[in-house]
Amino acid sequence: MIKVAICGGSGYTGAELLRILSGHPDVEITAVTSEKSAGKRVTDMFPHLHKYSYLIYEPLDKEKLLSKADLFFMALPHAASQEAVDYFFKKGKKIVDLSADYRLTDPAVYEEWYKTPHNYADTLKEAVYGLPELHREKIKKANLIANPGCYPTSAILGLYPAIKEGIIDIENIIIDSKSGTSGAGRKADVGFSYCEVNEGFKAYGIAVHRHTPEIEQELSGIAGKKIKINFTPHLVPMDRGIISTMYGKMLKKIDTADILDGYKKFYDAEPFVNVLDEGIFPNAKNVRGSNYCEIGLKVNKRTNTLIIVSAIDNLVKGASGQAVQNMNIIMGFKETTALGSQALFP
Amino acid sequence: MIKVAICGGSGYTGAELLRILSGHPDVEITAVTSEKSAGKRVTDMFPHLHKYSYLIYEPLDKEKLLSKADLFFMALPHAASQEAVDYFFKKGKKIVDLSADYRLTDPAVYEEWYKTPHNYADTLKEAVYGLPELHREKIKKANLIANPGCYPTSAILGLYPAIKEGIIDIENIIIDSKSGTSGAGRKADVGFSYCEVNEGFKAYGIAVHRHTPEIEQELSGIAGKKIKINFTPHLVPMDRGIISTMYGKMLKKIDTADILDGYKKFYDAEPFVNVLDEGIFPNAKNVRGSNYCEIGLKVNKRTNTLIIVSAIDNLVKGASGQAVQNMNIIMGFKETTALGSQALFP
Amino acid sequence: MIKVAICGGSGYTGAELLRILSGHPDVEITAVTSEKSAGKRVTDMFPHLHKYSYLIYEPLDKEKLLSKADLFFMALPHAASQEAVDYFFKKGKKIVDLSADYRLTDPAVYEEWYKTPHNYADTLKEAVYGLPELHREKIKKANLIANPGCYPTSAILGLYPAIKEGIIDIENIIIDSKSGTSGAGRKADVGFSYCEVNEGFKAYGIAVHRHTPEIEQELSGIAGKKIKINFTPHLVPMDRGIISTMYGKMLKKIDTADILDGYKKFYDAEPFVNVLDEGIFPNAKNVRGSNYCEIGLKVNKRTNTLIIVSAIDNLVKGASGQAVQNMNIIMGFKETTALGSQALFP
Amino acid sequence: MIKVAICGGSGYTGAELLRILSGHPDVEITAVTSEKSAGKRVTDMFPHLHKYSYLIYEPLDKEKLLSKADLFFMALPHAASQEAVDYFFKKGKKIVDLSADYRLTDPAVYEEWYKTPHNYADTLKEAVYGLPELHREKIKKANLIANPGCYPTSAILGLYPAIKEGIIDIENIIIDSKSGTSGAGRKADVGFSYCEVNEGFKAYGIAVHRHTPEIEQELSGIAGKKIKINFTPHLVPMDRGIISTMYGKMLKKIDTADILDGYKKFYDAEPFVNVLDEGIFPNAKNVRGSNYCEIGLKVNKRTNTLIIVSAIDNLVKGASGQAVQNMNIIMGFKETTALGSQALFP
Repeated sequence: MIKVAICGGSGYTGAELLRILSGHPDVEITAVTSEKSAGKRVTDMFPHLHKYSYLIYEPLDKEKLLSKADLFFMALPHAASQEAVDYFFKKGKKIVDLSADYRLTDPAVYEEWYKTPHNYADTLKEAVYGLPELHREKIKKANLIANPGCYPTSAILGLYPAIKEGIIDIENIIIDSKSGTSGAGRKADVGFSYCEVNEGFKAYGIAVHRHTPEIEQELSGIAGKKIKINFTPHLVPMDRGIISTMYGKMLKKIDTADILDGYKKFYDAEPFVNVLDEGIFPNAKNVRGSNYCEIGLKVNKRTNTLIIVSAIDNLVKGASGQAVQNMNIIMGFKETTALGSQALFP
Repeated sequence: MIKVAICGGSGYTGAELLRILSGHPDVEITAVTSEKSAGKRVTDMFPHLHKYSYLIYEPLDKEKLLSKADLFFMALPHAASQEAVDYFFKKGKKIVDLSADYRLTDPAVYEEWYKTPHNYADTLKEAVYGLPELHREKIKKANLIANPGCYPTSAILGLYPAIKEGIIDIENIIIDSKSGTSGAGRKADVGFSYCEVNEGFKAYGIAVHRHTPEIEQELSGIAGKKIKINFTPHLVPMDRGIISTMYGKMLKKIDTADILDGYKKFYDAEPFVNVLDEGIFPNAKNVRGSNYCEIGLKVNKRTNTLIIVSAIDNLVKGASGQAVQNMNIIMGFKETTALGSQALFP
Repeated sequence: MIKVAICGGSGYTGAELLRILSGHPDVEITAVTSEKSAGKRVTDMFPHLHKYSYLIYEPLDKEKLLSKADLFFMALPHAASQEAVDYFFKKGKKIVDLSADYRLTDPAVYEEWYKTPHNYADTLKEAVYGLPELHREKIKKANLIANPGCYPTSAILGLYPAIKEGIIDIENIIIDSKSGTSGAGRKADVGFSYCEVNEGFKAYGIAVHRHTPEIEQELSGIAGKKIKINFTPHLVPMDRGIISTMYGKMLKKIDTADILDGYKKFYDAEPFVNVLDEGIFPNAKNVRGSNYCEIGLKVNKRTNTLIIVSAIDNLVKGASGQAVQNMNIIMGFKETTALGSQALFP
Repeated sequence: MIKVAICGGSGYTGAELLRILSGHPDVEITAVTSEKSAGKRVTDMFPHLHKYSYLIYEPLDKEKLLSKADLFFMALPHAASQEAVDYFFKKGKKIVDLSADYRLTDPAVYEEWYKTPHNYADTLKEAVYGLPELHREKIKKANLIANPGCYPTSAILGLYPAIKEGIIDIENIIIDSKSGTSGAGRKADVGFSYCEVNEGFKAYGIAVHRHTPEIEQELSGIAGKKIKINFTPHLVPMDRGIISTMYGKMLKKIDTADILDGYKKFYDAEPFVNVLDEGIFPNAKNVRGSNYCEIGLKVNKRTNTLIIVSAIDNLVKGASGQAVQNMNIIMGFKETTALGSQALFP
């Protein structure tokens, strides 16, 4: 039984951590922080979490929290996470940081995209990018996990085998992603109000979205050379889910069945990646509320292009579920603990 | 470890049984039937249930099934359930019937509302209406559970204490219910296609809905005399959830706080009923995917009326979750086993 | 060609006025005001209104506006409307006020429900409640129209004939209403953000909603004596539409067909009220974007209760469409001008 | 006043034709056909179209229809349209065919993609592809208009100037499209039922969708040489709207502002194409219910790629609205007649 604190627990990812951890036998939640909601019960903000009716939000007082927990989930906005992560890390705590602050290994790239300097380059060096399918062995030994972004998780898992196996040209990869609205977080914003989002569909952040360098960093790592990608996110009128449709020019003449076969072998041991049979494609609805990633693909022979589609729940495999998966790995728990739920359908 | 079969497993309630039971440590699914989908894998019909990729639909062959399971969940359409339930019951099996066939104790009432005779009056006598909050002691000893309808569950739980304590007049009770679309089942029907339901809202089955006699039967049992109610269901453009708004003329002068206090005491020991604090009202979203029922209420002093609002997930507490709860009770398992998940929000 | 100004044009009702008036041959929009958006183009706030790309929001400067328009649509929040209406009225302008400020004839009732005094009792006396189906003759002669609330429009039109003809007991009328989310206006509010509303359903304002006295005032006028009603609004995950389900105890023995017949005759000359055939009930989807009100009803013989269901689009017949209808009447235009569109379905 | 018949009027495009034409001063609907609904009133199938309560569906009896109308809208399924179009055409009638039967100029291509031969090659030669922005002059003189598909309209309008001006490489164009559910038509199909579509998102028809050759034909015409494209459609949980996100490698060094400038000039005279300002991108919600096409674009300098986004309402500019626009052109009416409505927002 480990003691766990959640820093930044009044947003959707914080609530989702609580939901998932409510089924974890080895975890005790000892603190949850929120500046704005300090003093309120968790159930005041999230009535659906009534198992936590005893839990009260407290301000993020680092000294006070230190004695309360062995492991910290950091669900703070980017930039706000930097210092607290550094503090707990240097005090010897284990940390899973759901913010973007420790994902980019190069502080200059971080500053370029996030428009704020990274002040903890030494700690940044210790962080491991927490995508278990790529970095499980490193995660096992790490104390600081940079939990991947939602879009990057969907894109990287979809492209990993195709790049690794040299099936597609790493120039001109296009990632056209579509996300449910919870990705924007819980906030008062006209643009995310019901009547603006419902019955609408739009692209946003074209060519400038901050998940771009994160995807490029990991794909470059796989390819062994620098990759630049086109990444376009879209907003879908649904609560949860990300579908990424990816396009790569084929370097070899292989047909769909053989690529799928390779993908299935590649991910065979992965508990949370399902490669679908030929002719079947992912649906965001089939992973809702679950930690699974679904992948389908097809070769367009007329254009010599490989089209890969992946689906995840942005709040689970794209955030809090993956964070718990990382916790399980670094703590030596069974990796799937508390993460085995089948998707909620319909 | 008990062996469980699901008869009629290609609809939403069948799939929901599988989803919930995937987290049950004492249950092994040994068979799932479907006439239309016989020979197909469960995952062909429900890709989200990939834990059951080994499971193949088979036709409902009663003799064959007999040896396969100790307990049968019957998720067949009404009328279709009658005979199979009778068969398994007389063979000494335990049964949780999710159809309407064994809910109405009076076969004449059944025939009046369902326009088909009840041919198994003897077995009908053995059935217990499976609303644990009302009939837990009887359920414990029963072999045949008539699992309640979704609307009745929401209405009866909301009205139970108010009628029991004589707070409201049992004449002129109005139950105005609103249900998500999964209540209609999985079927090819223009009227339930996306473009017809989305951005729409309508009443249906006004004054003739078949859940009426079921609600009346149970409320009459509580009151100790015949009750007739007005029940109007509505279709909400959402997947899951039932909200029932109920109106009763007050017989006593009590204020909201005192009634709420009584409700909280009344349901204090119930693991799945949450009575909300004054000023807070249920939201279908807060129970989605969970077995909980939320209840809120308020006295309208200007009109001397008690307004009660309840919320459940129609597929969980309104169907498959309650069925598993009943199974837990009759099998002597912990009643909450596999049912403890917090709602999926957002 | 009359000159028209819209005061408070940055909300949904303001935008809807512009949309509807874009098809009106006798109207020229000369000014649209917004304090927050002053200086911005209408199309900056509402890209869908590109016909108005020339129109710039200006602050509400009463003196300046005076010379610009013959008729003023006031789409300000309640309380904010009082003074400006009084000013334009006393300057001899024609006004259609979409706020609640001039709807309640008794200033004491206004103060009780809106928690702010009414400072213009003299002007209030001149206002006519702008429900043409009830008050067309008075509207024709009026210069100040208090445009009805959305819920009241749906409830009053549904109950009018039944009360007028003495079919139902005016005691214990229950109005259970369900509204799309645009009724809450365009605002930054977590509670109305997409992820909170979508896949949810809830009651709100139980026994305290401010449309209660407005409904009671008009129904009392019809009945010729004081009526108190139970009114419960609910929030539906859709953009537009109100369905009101209404319950009244029957005073006479009449069957559904005869009541429907009476309703059809009653509303025969009304261009925007459609009484549906027996067995057919309104759907919010069938009036979306249109100025029509649909009414269906049924007698529950088992309980001797009349159940009436009405549907309107809250932004059209429930707000801006009715406002244009009122303008047409007071200006002597054909009443249906710019209002003949069939609903947008699906 | 011309007499107009709609063949195949019980689907969404047929109903949408009726909705739009209800505001057309020069058109009288004299017949509407449906085999399945023959004998029923239009309002039995579409209660929102109550202006047409007098109109009864009749079977498609070609001889009988001949005398009834001057112009025929054909809204039949593909293949079913071939013969009837040929018949009316040879009898000298004017035809706007909303099916795919006369869109592909090469009958062999038609047969390859639609798996059925084209039996009227002579009539096919007379058909003009009815995208007014490309072929207005030909449309003016034509008697048979092949009304474009919804996806092609969105894709071609977005890419037209970029290809025409040689801004992008015509190899490797990627068209990633997302459509609301009404594109699938009105039908009883589990896959399009509310609970399957809602809260889901998926790609379909990858590399095999039948709109591919139609897009290729028109883009090839613009480029003056054969183009093959990647086209991936997706299903969005909303009623109406198509967003196409398009990617092309840049051939020249131009920045976003200059390309936008060129686009604005290119489409300057077009009544239904709106090129948005830099930094603003289309939203399906902003064109809902209208005949407008919105286009936005951005250069990704890091990858030297032009990203173009277009939005239309699939039932209006993508089907029935464009059909009316074509009718207006061939009949010599003002092109925008009955098509000027601003979008319904929210």
